[in-house]
Amino acid sequence: MTELTNHQLRLIARPTGAPSAEHFEATEEPARVPEDGELLLETVYASIDPAMRVWMNEDPGYVPPIPLGAVMRGGGIARVLQSRDEAFEVGDVVAARPGWQSHPTLPASEATKLDLGLGTIEDWAGPIGTTGLTAYFGIREVGAIQPGETVLVSGAAGAVGQMVGQIAKIEGCTVVGIAGGPEKCARLTEDLGFDAAIDYKAVDHLEAAIAGACPNGVDVFFDNVGGETLDAALANLRLKGRAVICGRISQTAAEELYGVKNLGVLIGKRARVEGFIVSDYADEFPEARRWISQRLREGELKQALHVVDGLERAPEALAMLFEGKNTGKLVVRVTDA
Amino acid sequence: MTELTNHQLRLIARPTGAPSAEHFEATEEPARVPEDGELLLETVYASIDPAMRVWMNEDPGYVPPIPLGAVMRGGGIARVLQSRDEAFEVGDVVAARPGWQSHPTLPASEATKLDLGLGTIEDWAGPIGTTGLTAYFGIREVGAIQPGETVLVSGAAGAVGQMVGQIAKIEGCTVVGIAGGPEKCARLTEDLGFDAAIDYKAVDHLEAAIAGACPNGVDVFFDNVGGETLDAALANLRLKGRAVICGRISQTAAEELYGVKNLGVLIGKRARVEGFIVSDYADEFPEARRWISQRLREGELKQALHVVDGLERAPEALAMLFEGKNTGKLVVRVTDA
Repeated sequence: MTELTNHQLRLIARPTGAPSAEHFEATEEPARVPEDGELLLETVYASIDPAMRVWMNEDPGYVPPIPLGAVMRGGGIARVLQSRDEAFEVGDVVAARPGWQSHPTLPASEATKLDLGLGTIEDWAGPIGTTGLTAYFGIREVGAIQPGETVLVSGAAGAVGQMVGQIAKIEGCTVVGIAGGPEKCARLTEDLGFDAAIDYKAVDHLEAAIAGACPNGVDVFFDNVGGETLDAALANLRLKGRAVICGRISQTAAEELYGVKNLGVLIGKRARVEGFIVSDYADEFPEARRWISQRLREGELKQALHVVDGLERAPEALAMLFEGKNTGKLVVRVTDA
Repeated sequence: MTELTNHQLRLIARPTGAPSAEHFEATEEPARVPEDGELLLETVYASIDPAMRVWMNEDPGYVPPIPLGAVMRGGGIARVLQSRDEAFEVGDVVAARPGWQSHPTLPASEATKLDLGLGTIEDWAGPIGTTGLTAYFGIREVGAIQPGETVLVSGAAGAVGQMVGQIAKIEGCTVVGIAGGPEKCARLTEDLGFDAAIDYKAVDHLEAAIAGACPNGVDVFFDNVGGETLDAALANLRLKGRAVICGRISQTAAEELYGVKNLGVLIGKRARVEGFIVSDYADEFPEARRWISQRLREGELKQALHVVDGLERAPEALAMLFEGKNTGKLVVRVTDA
């Protein structure tokens, strides 16, 4: 055990646009033996999320920046190899913030033991993890969907988008997804039960395409993309429509922000645009996880992970988010589960 | 009575930018004797409102356009000269849509008799009329203000803005107004009880000026202006902040729309942007009018009309809205009250 090597990827440069391999450097050091209250972990899946690009900035806004030279920050799922905390045993599977390293040693207080009775490690990496909770609270609580309403989802083939659409279907809504390319669109309508999908890469005018797919307008727009997509959706909002701003991947790594022109629609339509952060709903996570878990088991909800193999490919995986190359929840497999 | 002349202003050209005298033509014709169910009115005050510019477009969106050659559409307060409806008597004062004409003959069903026990004709033209109701429901219901919150109002010296700020003060909020020029700003802080005023014409950087005046951020932004002002306010929203979109005078006559870049703030701040139309609250108008009326009488609320004399000056008055030249509710006095 003492010979264990901790492989790491460190941030060595701050991107101005999209992140890529040049912003990281691979290092290794012996895994550190845990002290009292610490755990030595083996990272199974590193989660790849849009917010990570924001943390790479010198001024991320709501959290401290990742210092240059530090291990890249990020959430993930890990297995306990050594425990110096009585609440954890060797072999436990935990959610933590291992960052981009294979064998971190972390305070036990920062790890959460996962109940594998509720779902597999893969379920915890996706649908019953933060991704699924974000979809659940965003569309149900912030979007306040009602049966019979029309829900439009951008980034619909992404981690959150897939879940949003399926949850809205379960709740009795008509669901239209926006995604890039025929394969993603086919997955939405053929595998995940979306009523329609718009391939934004194949349409000249997204606003008109939305109007065609949602002839009565959009009651709830769940937005993971922002920018032009938000503008096109706003123009199609119905009376009392809600645009739920979950993310804005088109703007996250943009060097110049897009200006949204259609906010005037909100007046005549008595509509709203609202943002949220899933952690505000932490008290309700257990109930939400049970809801999602049950529907996963019954086959009403599906989510395949999009797995990229090998920690060394984490920079490539992060870049995929901004190129729209992932389908479903993107993770890097660091060690075998 | 048969010799009465109806002076009119007709729309003869559609503006691309701001409206001006060249878009109208003065005509006159004998006042028409009312038929059964009609009233012959004498317009006292023609209301001058931003929406009128929108109605001049070929495609206003939510209402039909004003046909070229037709009398300019608009609300106002009038006195009944002849009645062919048993619900109205000669001398009654009514709210109606006389448009830009001195002696219209209209269906009685389109007129609402005003209770002059609740307020003067001037009160009905402003604070207990649509302007005051818009402020009342916008800041209380949509903005959902709470005592102790910080409220920022744009177009604060305008018809709705003045009322919003005063109502928010009565409700226990700290109120900051944005207006153009030292005179308007002095009126806000010295006469109307605003805690601070920002002269947007005198600051280099509105976002920073708002941060200075609202050091803890903005809980509720009540927006009458839109565009850059909205962007600067969004950047200053607090956690769970609300931006209430009442109007956007900066964009109403703009030839190119401004793109709002700061919507990403809504995510981290769990904030929302929401539009409304006052007519949705019609069931609650009587109660709101009593609330406003009582505070007018007690001197807690003030609103001076900004009166432009003479129907022929109505185009000039309308243009004033887009030049920020009015202080308070703008009306054209067509005949003496």
